[in-house]
Amino acid sequence: MTLEIYWGAGSPYAWRVLLAAEIKRIPYESKLLEFSKGDLKTPAFLAISPRGKVPAIRDGDFTLGESLAILAYLDRKYPEPPIFGKTPEEAGRIAVAIADFESYVREPVALVNRWVFGDKPKTPEVDDARTKVIAEVERFEARLGKGPWLVGTTPTAADIAWFPTLRGFIRGGVRNEARATEMGLYPLATKFPNIGTWVERVEALPGYDKTFPPHWR
Amino acid sequence: MTLEIYWGAGSPYAWRVLLAAEIKRIPYESKLLEFSKGDLKTPAFLAISPRGKVPAIRDGDFTLGESLAILAYLDRKYPEPPIFGKTPEEAGRIAVAIADFESYVREPVALVNRWVFGDKPKTPEVDDARTKVIAEVERFEARLGKGPWLVGTTPTAADIAWFPTLRGFIRGGVRNEARATEMGLYPLATKFPNIGTWVERVEALPGYDKTFPPHWR
Repeated sequence: MTLEIYWGAGSPYAWRVLLAAEIKRIPYESKLLEFSKGDLKTPAFLAISPRGKVPAIRDGDFTLGESLAILAYLDRKYPEPPIFGKTPEEAGRIAVAIADFESYVREPVALVNRWVFGDKPKTPEVDDARTKVIAEVERFEARLGKGPWLVGTTPTAADIAWFPTLRGFIRGGVRNEARATEMGLYPLATKFPNIGTWVERVEALPGYDKTFPPHWR
Repeated sequence: MTLEIYWGAGSPYAWRVLLAAEIKRIPYESKLLEFSKGDLKTPAFLAISPRGKVPAIRDGDFTLGESLAILAYLDRKYPEPPIFGKTPEEAGRIAVAIADFESYVREPVALVNRWVFGDKPKTPEVDDARTKVIAEVERFEARLGKGPWLVGTTPTAADIAWFPTLRGFIRGGVRNEARATEMGLYPLATKFPNIGTWVERVEALPGYDKTFPPHWR
């Protein structure tokens, strides 16, 4: 049976799974769910993803949610090319880059994006979140000064974990240039040149186009 | 050179690393840092852990921070016994259990613990955090109804990720029984019997005693 990937347009976490599948050249059936139609709360989907969240996968009888868990599963089931490192040291560094995103970026970036993509006035919380996000993006920019990919010489789960959110900043500029600029996140490639060329590098990966959010075109 | 583990008393994340090292029977040199003495902000330590946080390790020339990253590194460097799963399916389930902790427990439990171990009045935020924590602990209790360990038949990174925080609830009852009871977290083994026996199981692991926070005795 073909691997089924359940995702939703606009979910950066679902995008991670599509990217991993393309990088590993795993054949899959794309299952695009619509939040607005209640697709995530149907009994059929809750049987696959008990929290009613995307991404989720079904691989034969096996079902799994949570983007990083799906990446871990795919890497063990389809080991080539490895995305969690070729050596213990790479594995450690990849996991640190992922932890950096999960612990220091995930929460504040959600707040920043809500402001950039919305029409609410700015609050001190948004400014505080902005400071945190910029500090982490600057660390990321510096790290990309050392090589084409975050860790090692090939794209890994670290690049995959960060990419959808960083690519979203470009989208933020398209949707609301004034706010994205005020946040210091746009134009991304001008502010953070290493990230700019890294985004191009990811976008040049085979299969990338298939993962691109359809409603962004 | 012996693996050096830098930790701090009372850090549940540092405890994870000590537990992993004991489960894998890795010889290590214990480096207990004192927060109050500024040990985490010395140039020597910042060279090992740029954010000035524990846990961190030094293994020869290689240094690494972030508990989950250290677990990933140790598992690749010292593969036996594996703590990230023996099969792709186990690897996926272990990563889900870890993501559950990181995404749904880490933040609210910090708020709950600040209240339980402190002397500040309760706020609506604490009650809200309590509701979230209890819901996740109940899922955890249900999961432990299916086997002795969270995933598979041996202790894994999933058990290691959750244990220090859950064991902390027992400590909370010892330090401030009234507040821990009010939170619904104490007595832990009465409220959550599966977790109670699982805690005993972890505490019976060889080497466990060496990881026990010295100031809790």
